[in-house]
Parts: sequence; structure tokens; C-alpha cells
Amino acid sequence: MKFTIAVLPGDGIGPEITQQSVKVLKAIAERFEHEFKFEEALVGAAAMDLFETPLPDSTLKICKNSDAVLFGAIGDPKYDNDPSAKVRPEQGLLKLRKELGLFANIRPVKAYDKLINKSPLKAENIQGANMVIFRELTGGIYFGEKSTSEDGKSASDLCTYSVEEIERIAHLAFQAAQKRSKKLTLVDKANVLETSRLWRKTVTSLAKKYEDVTLDFLFIDNAAMQMILNPKQFDVILTENMFGDILSDEASVIGGSIGLLESASIGNKYSMFEPIHGSYPQAKGKGIANPVASILSAAMMLDHFGLTEEAKLVRNAVEISIQLNVCTKDINNDNHYSTEKVGDFLESVI
Amino acid sequence: MKFTIAVLPGDGIGPEITQQSVKVLKAIAERFEHEFKFEEALVGAAAMDLFETPLPDSTLKICKNSDAVLFGAIGDPKYDNDPSAKVRPEQGLLKLRKELGLFANIRPVKAYDKLINKSPLKAENIQGANMVIFRELTGGIYFGEKSTSEDGKSASDLCTYSVEEIERIAHLAFQAAQKRSKKLTLVDKANVLETSRLWRKTVTSLAKKYEDVTLDFLFIDNAAMQMILNPKQFDVILTENMFGDILSDEASVIGGSIGLLESASIGNKYSMFEPIHGSYPQAKGKGIANPVASILSAAMMLDHFGLTEEAKLVRNAVEISIQLNVCTKDINNDNHYSTEKVGDFLESVI
Ligand SMILES: CC(C)[C@H](C(=O)O)[C@@H](O)C(=O)O
Ligand SMILES: CC(C)[C@H](C(=O)O)[C@@H](O)C(=O)O
Repeated sequence: MKFTIAVLPGDGIGPEITQQSVKVLKAIAERFEHEFKFEEALVGAAAMDLFETPLPDSTLKICKNSDAVLFGAIGDPKYDNDPSAKVRPEQGLLKLRKELGLFANIRPVKAYDKLINKSPLKAENIQGANMVIFRELTGGIYFGEKSTSEDGKSASDLCTYSVEEIERIAHLAFQAAQKRSKKLTLVDKANVLETSRLWRKTVTSLAKKYEDVTLDFLFIDNAAMQMILNPKQFDVILTENMFGDILSDEASVIGGSIGLLESASIGNKYSMFEPIHGSYPQAKGKGIANPVASILSAAMMLDHFGLTEEAKLVRNAVEISIQLNVCTKDINNDNHYSTEKVGDFLESVI
Repeated sequence: MKFTIAVLPGDGIGPEITQQSVKVLKAIAERFEHEFKFEEALVGAAAMDLFETPLPDSTLKICKNSDAVLFGAIGDPKYDNDPSAKVRPEQGLLKLRKELGLFANIRPVKAYDKLINKSPLKAENIQGANMVIFRELTGGIYFGEKSTSEDGKSASDLCTYSVEEIERIAHLAFQAAQKRSKKLTLVDKANVLETSRLWRKTVTSLAKKYEDVTLDFLFIDNAAMQMILNPKQFDVILTENMFGDILSDEASVIGGSIGLLESASIGNKYSMFEPIHGSYPQAKGKGIANPVASILSAAMMLDHFGLTEEAKLVRNAVEISIQLNVCTKDINNDNHYSTEKVGDFLESVI
């Protein structure tokens, strides 16, 4: 089969990890006689340096003309502490999500038996934990109107949600729950926020269509605690943009490293695959970044193409690398392999 | 000395835990020959049942005429899943915070050596952890304009902050850092939110007045992860209302139980002391609720009155109860004491 894949390495460790995914995808193409065409494009700070915008039109066009986007990471500290900067790398990612209509960000989290002792959490608390977080990705406070008063003395961000925005991702989350342990937890702050109450109302009425799924509710503050106290209680978590951002980064401690966590961002027309970790600028170019999150994101892409055998093979390769301790420093501190070596190993077992 | 203390037990386990704090405060008054006058008043669902409002004027008046407020907990599940309810118990708490101008919520978090194994986190990760979270309490998305469209198809919440709101709590946080390990971490989402950028700008320029304090920044998603990976890195955390709500509940896992965490809410004129845990309705009336969070909140009240010896004695009593395992079920599962028995014990060692 033929697929065109837009590759957007982005900033920080983005390029070095994405390179390993491309390597692995090429190995898959060769083995299964597919044709993957890779179209590379700039995004984020990398694009700003050349084009003064974090999402050049040419990049967006390449994405829209591809079957999927493989995304690296975004963000550069030189913009973080400059609150007066008019343009920031992150806007490139946010605009891309919006332009491609990627409303559902799907973030699986699990504890790997072999890595159980790498987690700051006690083994007995996490063994067997396996959940997937459905984070709404194109609404909420990320995209609402922002303003600063003329005198610079006050600022605001608007959080909005519509029934439609809630329903389309809720359907996906219910359907995922049906294929898993049939439990859906909606995380919100309905005791304070009007938007959360709309979420609760909308999801509750949708639940009637999914009678085999048990729906429950948690306030975000409690959920942030429960995620650590008893992560095994979760199957599918559904939540809005900002809460999903926080909760999924927090949940990464279960797996022992944020460098393992993949994600898929799905819309009606386009799709994008990106690790949940950020650009990790301190590690840039050092060869210590873990490529697994990006490679597992590529596996989600293969699934999305309907190439389930191929996806399984990539996941198996990752399992083998973990079994054999062919891992980067975040996981294997004593005798670690470089980003590239891990990529080479995974390529070799495919 | 003479003090009038408004006692607002509220909902769920609120009444039973608050009762123990009053007991302890009475023991302190007796031992040190103070005169504490307790004025009880209704709030939350408890008030709604009688007055149809979660914060009756009479309650507010009692609070304003007191030297401090001792607050139990608020919230009742019968209102949580009714998104169409016009009035909710939580509005009582929010209005109280606003009316009393309690802009700074101070939440200390520490690992007790004796309880180190109760935490879901590994002992070596938390031993010695000791931080205090300064959560802004009367601004942000909690208090911004809320609306639902006429057709009920969309909703919004506005998050606003002014320089003044940020500065007044930032001063308190910097001053606290000066008395501690001289490190202040501002938690925000400045890569996405306009309000966060105002926080970063305002706090950065204030930092010049506190040159002995090291200021650093973390995005909330990363902070939620760092809180578990390496809580010992934190000394004073400063953050806005919603992020503080999430982060402090999450941080409770460090101490081994949310039933241990006290808080003080401070304004220019009034002050209120409340446990960070909620109304925990499932435990109501069962005698299993941990009164320590409320009792340690009462100790913060004593400090606030300038009664440092007295506060120390209460904290010592709590340490002794933990040493001797005179603890409720959340901490001492095998041979637990009831809420009342723990209160009696603490009273007896004062
Ligand atoms: C880089 C940032 C804007 C982004 C987000 O907050 O969505 C990141 O944290 C993520 O989770 O993908
Ligand atoms: C009850 C609720 C409104 C409250 C809050 O979110 O502030 C509580 O969670 C807290 O942290 O005091």
C-alpha cells in the first residue's frame, strides 16, 4: 500500500527522535512491501527562525496533502520567559491541531512489567495499570478569546465548549470503552465550571446509547490524586483540553518515563501522531532522548492506516528492546544506549 | 487572650472533624487561660436545606464579626450530578472566600517519617519532602463570568487576573520563601494562556525585591509530573486558583493521606482555616474521617493569632498520635481509632 506521511520534527529533541521513527517506518515498508513517502516540513521555533511564523503555509499544505502527520515536539526556552513575545512556537502546534480539526487526542498509559521498578510509585500500586486518556484537543481555554487590557494591568482567557464539541469526542471514548473494560470516567470540575456542567450533562445523556459502558465522574482535583493512589481503577478517561494536558503528563509516572508515551490526534479528515513529551531542550543533541514515545506514536499511525500486523510488530520490537534493556538513559541509567542505537536496534528486529 | 472563632462545619464529614478541632482548641484555651468563644453557623448543603442558600447572611455576619473562621467541608453528591441546579453548596464556599477577601490559600505538604510507607510513592522519593503551596483563591476561572447560551448548546467560563491580584499573593509567597529554603517555583501555562503570561511577567519583576530568593518556572503539566517524580525539589510553589486546586490535592499523596493536610486562607482583614480534603460524603457519620487536617488547620489559626507556643503544642500532639499509631483508618488500617477517639487522644495530650 501507498501512504504519504508528513514529518514535522520541530524543536529540541524532536528531530532526533522523529528520525528513529522514520527509520522504523522504513523498515516496516520494506518488510511488508508498502510505499511510504516522507515529506519533511518545519514547525515551531525551527520554522520561526526561517519564516517568522511557527506554522508556515507550506507546512500546513504538506500536512493536508498527506495521509498522516508524524510530529516531533515543540517549544524553545528562549520564548518561554519572554511574555511580550508576539509569536511563540507553541502557536504552531495549536494552529496545526485546529486547522487539521484534530479534536481527539488519545493517550494510552500502561505499566510495563519489566519497568515496574523504574516508577516513583510502588510496584503493587501500578502493576497491571492500563488506561487510555481521551483529551479534547481543539476547544476549551486553549482556543478561547485571549486578551490583555491596554494598560497591561490585566489579562483574560476564555474557556468555551459546545455540545457538538463534547459529543464527537465522547462518542469515540464510549466506543473505545466498549472495546476495553467498559468503564468511562469523565473528569471535570462541575462543582465550579459552567463548561464542566455542560460536559457532564452532554456525556450523561449520550451514555444512554452505550448502556454496556459504566460511566462515572471525578472532579479534576480528586482525579489528580486518584491517578497516583489507585491508577488501576481507570479504564477510559474522558476530559477537556487543559485537564487532559495535566492529567496525561502526570500519568506518565506510571510507565516509569514520559519518554514512553505515545499519542494519536484524530479528526474527521486528518490525523497526527506525536509523543506526549515536549521538546526537552536540555537534552537536545545529546543522544539521550528516548525515541520510543515517537516510535509507538508511529505504531498508532500504522493502526490508523489499517496496518494492524505492522503496528503489532513495532510494539513487539519495543517490548523486546525493553526486555533486553536496550533503552535510553531515562530507563536504563547504568548501561544506557543512545537515541540512535535504540532506533537501530528496533529497526533491526523488524 | 480573647478570640471569637466562627465555626462552620458544613457538609459530609465536616461536622465530625470540626468537632474534634473545637475540642482541641478548648483544651488549649484551658491550659493557656485564653478565652475562645465559638460561634457556630450553617454553610453549604446544610444551609441550603434550611435557608435555600449555601451562605446565609447570618453566617457571613458571624464570620465578619469573628477573629477567624474554622471551616469544615462543603459538597453533597445530590447536587453534583444535577447540572441544571441553580444553586450549589460550593457556591457558599466560593462566596465566603470572596466576601472575606481570602486571596491567599496556604497549603503546607510534608512527608511524615513515621508514615513514609503509607504513601503510594517510594520512600526514597519522598523522605524529607517539605513544601508549601500558595494558591491564589479569589480570582481566575473560579470567579470569572460564566454563561450558557440560550439554547443550552454552549457554555463558557472566563479566567481573568490583574497585576494587583498576582502581586499581593506573590509578596506573601516570596516572604515565605525567605523564611524557608529561599526557592520559589511559579507554576503556570505561559506557553498557552494570556493570564499565565501576566503571572510570569508580574512575578518576574517582583523578584527583584527578593534577591535572596531563587525564582523558577514550571508549566502545570510538567509540575504535575515533577510533583511525583521528585517532590523534594520544591520549597514554595506559587500558582493560580485552578492549578493550585489540582496540584495540592495531587501533592497530598506525599503525606500518605489527604486527611492530614491543613490550609489557611488569608486576606487583608479576615482569615479562614480549613482542611484541603472535601466533604467525603461516603464516610459521613461512620467515625472513620481523619480529624488531623482540621486540627492542624486550627494550629495554623493559633499561629495566626500569634499564639505560637500553643500552635506548637497542637502540632506536637499530632506528631505523638502518629508516633503511637493513634490514627484513623486512612493511615492505620489494621487497628484504627475512630474520629472521636483521635480527637480525645489529642485533647488528652494537650
Ligand atoms: C506544547 C503545549 C502547547 C502542548 C499542550 O499543552 O497541549 C503540550 O504540553 C502537549 O500536551 O501536547
Ligand atoms: C469544593 C471546591 C469548590 C473547592 C475548590 O475547588 O476550591 C475544594 O476543592 C478546595 O480545594 O477547597
